[in-house]
Amino acid sequence: MILPKEISYEVKKESTKFQVFYFSFHGLGACPRALLCFGGEGIQWENKLTTMEKWPQDKTTTPTGYVPVLIETDLKTNTTIEIPESLAMERYLAAKFGLLGDNAREQTLNDIFYAQAVMLNTKFVDKVFWTFEEVRVKSLNQLLESTLPDWVKLCEKHLMENGNTGHFVDNKFTLADIKTAVVLDTFLGLDSEKVLGPISSPGLWKLKETVDTHPVYAAWRKSEEYKIFDSETQASVGTLMSFNLSKSHIFT
Amino acid sequence: MILPKEISYEVKKESTKFQVFYFSFHGLGACPRALLCFGGEGIQWENKLTTMEKWPQDKTTTPTGYVPVLIETDLKTNTTIEIPESLAMERYLAAKFGLLGDNAREQTLNDIFYAQAVMLNTKFVDKVFWTFEEVRVKSLNQLLESTLPDWVKLCEKHLMENGNTGHFVDNKFTLADIKTAVVLDTFLGLDSEKVLGPISSPGLWKLKETVDTHPVYAAWRKSEEYKIFDSETQASVGTLMSFNLSKSHIFT
Repeated sequence: MILPKEISYEVKKESTKFQVFYFSFHGLGACPRALLCFGGEGIQWENKLTTMEKWPQDKTTTPTGYVPVLIETDLKTNTTIEIPESLAMERYLAAKFGLLGDNAREQTLNDIFYAQAVMLNTKFVDKVFWTFEEVRVKSLNQLLESTLPDWVKLCEKHLMENGNTGHFVDNKFTLADIKTAVVLDTFLGLDSEKVLGPISSPGLWKLKETVDTHPVYAAWRKSEEYKIFDSETQASVGTLMSFNLSKSHIFT
Repeated sequence: MILPKEISYEVKKESTKFQVFYFSFHGLGACPRALLCFGGEGIQWENKLTTMEKWPQDKTTTPTGYVPVLIETDLKTNTTIEIPESLAMERYLAAKFGLLGDNAREQTLNDIFYAQAVMLNTKFVDKVFWTFEEVRVKSLNQLLESTLPDWVKLCEKHLMENGNTGHFVDNKFTLADIKTAVVLDTFLGLDSEKVLGPISSPGLWKLKETVDTHPVYAAWRKSEEYKIFDSETQASVGTLMSFNLSKSHIFT
């Protein structure tokens, strides 16, 4: 469990391979996968997939008993580092790829809007997806009619004050942008048209376009493996509520 | 909303006053208040309190419409910086006071166990406190019988591997320690005796002692204002479920 001393934020593209160990759907795997794309051309990464059938066995091989796990292999020495806990691995990858902001102001802005996106997504997962059947509809309505509009309003105010650049921090990519774009995929799939759209949320629309058209990320979103994750995510969420993930593919 | 350029992680004890703007209970104010104690002797801070009656008006004065807000005043120029979003202000204070770890390994370990504590607390708040009445008991039972024991097991494994130092990272204080100790106050107040105790969770017990006996924090926990926050927290949570916050005062 204790991380090795060798762990470092240095990026060695040629001699490093990353793996995201998770299921074959988006869920908590989506943001680490996106971040690996924002590492840019030449970052070597792949998905290592478990299944519901294999999970009881695979679980025992993980540092904490949970996925996602980020596995980083030094191809020269064939040693691996495993990082559990999605928020920790997201921050680790963001630190590696210069996506946390460069000074106290940028870092704090990134932290504010990263936390906002994390907590919005957590509310969906904890209160709507993994909840008791008798309150699912009420919880979903509360999320769509109160939590989501409040979050959109807060983001729009800041994004406009920041000049509608498509970014939360000046004109640069940060973890907050990428997490927000990933979380928006889920919310665009829900019945959110009144709140999310080019007229009602122009700042978030611009941010979504800016993130989703990043060349490496756009290529990942168009890949065959991504389409499989789309359809497994659609099946999993779509059995519980009105959900159409194809609505998230606006720009790529 | 956009933070001023002047925001910095530099600590100027003599010329800075911090305020935590929040209600007169613990809730999301507890961790920023604790962090200000871990800034050490000479950090000037106080609570700025709102009430349920004043909140509709006070809400309009905050950067995002939510509390807590950290207000940092430069006493020489009388200019203020306001930082919203509890996770962002916690990270900001931790950065100021050297509580985020000093290298990639320490920072990632801190991030893993900080995220674990944040998410455990969020599950209590979202699924048990702010939930629909008809599922509150079921949600609380799930939290106490499954979520809490899983978290304890994970922490204990790591804390023992780390030598039972009372810390998640080697022998030094980090944000993860402080957040965990604060979150434990809530869980100690619940019916958690089977899972939390000197025999069943010795690593967390040692951590709690290590954090709570820090001289400046211990003094805050014994203060009259802290006792008021205890009784308001007791009243708020105690009407909804079996809760006895006095059980959290083990070491101070």
